[in-house]
Amino acid sequence: MISDTDRAIFEAGIKLGALYHQWVGTPISRKSASSVESAIEQAVILQPFVEEITIRLDRSLMTENRFGYSELSGLMFDVEIITRVGFTYCRARLAPHDSYPLMQIVECYEITEVSHN
Amino acid sequence: MISDTDRAIFEAGIKLGALYHQWVGTPISRKSASSVESAIEQAVILQPFVEEITIRLDRSLMTENRFGYSELSGLMFDVEIITRVGFTYCRARLAPHDSYPLMQIVECYEITEVSHN
Amino acid sequence: MISDTDRAIFEAGIKLGALYHQWVGTPISRKSASSVESAIEQAVILQPFVEEITIRLDRSLMTENRFGYSELSGLMFDVEIITRVGFTYCRARLAPHDSYPLMQIVECYEITEVSHN
Amino acid sequence: MISDTDRAIFEAGIKLGALYHQWVGTPISRKSASSVESAIEQAVILQPFVEEITIRLDRSLMTENRFGYSELSGLMFDVEIITRVGFTYCRARLAPHDSYPLMQIVECYEITEVSHN
Repeated sequence: MISDTDRAIFEAGIKLGALYHQWVGTPISRKSASSVESAIEQAVILQPFVEEITIRLDRSLMTENRFGYSELSGLMFDVEIITRVGFTYCRARLAPHDSYPLMQIVECYEITEVSHN
Repeated sequence: MISDTDRAIFEAGIKLGALYHQWVGTPISRKSASSVESAIEQAVILQPFVEEITIRLDRSLMTENRFGYSELSGLMFDVEIITRVGFTYCRARLAPHDSYPLMQIVECYEITEVSHN
Repeated sequence: MISDTDRAIFEAGIKLGALYHQWVGTPISRKSASSVESAIEQAVILQPFVEEITIRLDRSLMTENRFGYSELSGLMFDVEIITRVGFTYCRARLAPHDSYPLMQIVECYEITEVSHN
Repeated sequence: MISDTDRAIFEAGIKLGALYHQWVGTPISRKSASSVESAIEQAVILQPFVEEITIRLDRSLMTENRFGYSELSGLMFDVEIITRVGFTYCRARLAPHDSYPLMQIVECYEITEVSHN
């Protein structure tokens, strides 16, 4: 009933929703941004069904408050994730769209099982 | 390419992943549990594509630490969510399964558009 | 070496830092704001050394995004907390100050131990 | 009324409370632990009044769930922070104590203003 494609899509949604709410609010600056990107990537790749994850945080939005730092906000995220269940892949994205941090399925595809003749 | 079913599934995943990581770690007790359940439900129902959300937090796991409270942990969640995109619904769940807080698609279904003869 | 006043101040800081980062990012609207206020208050009051906690979230900042809700942000918080260690109290606050969510000690005071003649 | 020592203590409390609730729940493993330690340190050092921060996450508690990873929990933290306000320093710690993630002030001290004869 529930296909591998369904499950790959579901897992992509879970991972994007999770990382957003885990990390929003983290103190951040242009200098520390790459350490946060790396920590998020390494946290996400640990989770089941994740094949690839790429995070780019928008430095241009990291305007300094009176104490010289910023907070990680939803619009800073540009994330691409690929999940896999069986032979099906789902590629999804979190990126700003009309000033909203939008999560979207980009594409799903199957690879053919390699024959072993 | 991306169907309404795909999107309903994706949204269900997003919401479950998000609520898990937003709320895990909250100080909680048997007495305060219903206020947290209510706040989570009201936060989730605000989000796009959510039709229904029910949260039940397992009081039996809320064992008191030396200061008399507990922390909301993943295994305490029993959540059922229904998302809708167009005429398609997705029902998904977060509940303990073999000591892991498992998120699963329960079912997807379409309702027939009501005819207006 | 470490006085009760020191400890009451420390505890007030812990609680304000904790609640800020636990709850920032929660989906919120004017309609759901009171449920979130109540859940935060009930979560904080559980913790050791907390005597009183009052949370008021600024509805005027809850502008709706394209999906009709907002996210709890630092500047929405107006929080007053009173912690107690022994006979010493610390009153502290989290509130916007020059567009920064500032945490400040308001006052510390001791009550005289009641004599039992 | 409020001394520099009071404020240094307050800031230490804020930072410990904040980092705890920001990061608890992050997916983690022995392999990724150092990236999370680094990201937390870099996030905390950005904040006002922080002079030094050292984080050590207890790998021995990172037992793998059925999917091969763990979640950052309170007892994994061993954190030492030094805050400074004016010429006063506060050293505080978050570490397990009787199975509770305890936050404590270790010591406060002043440095003498350097004379410029």
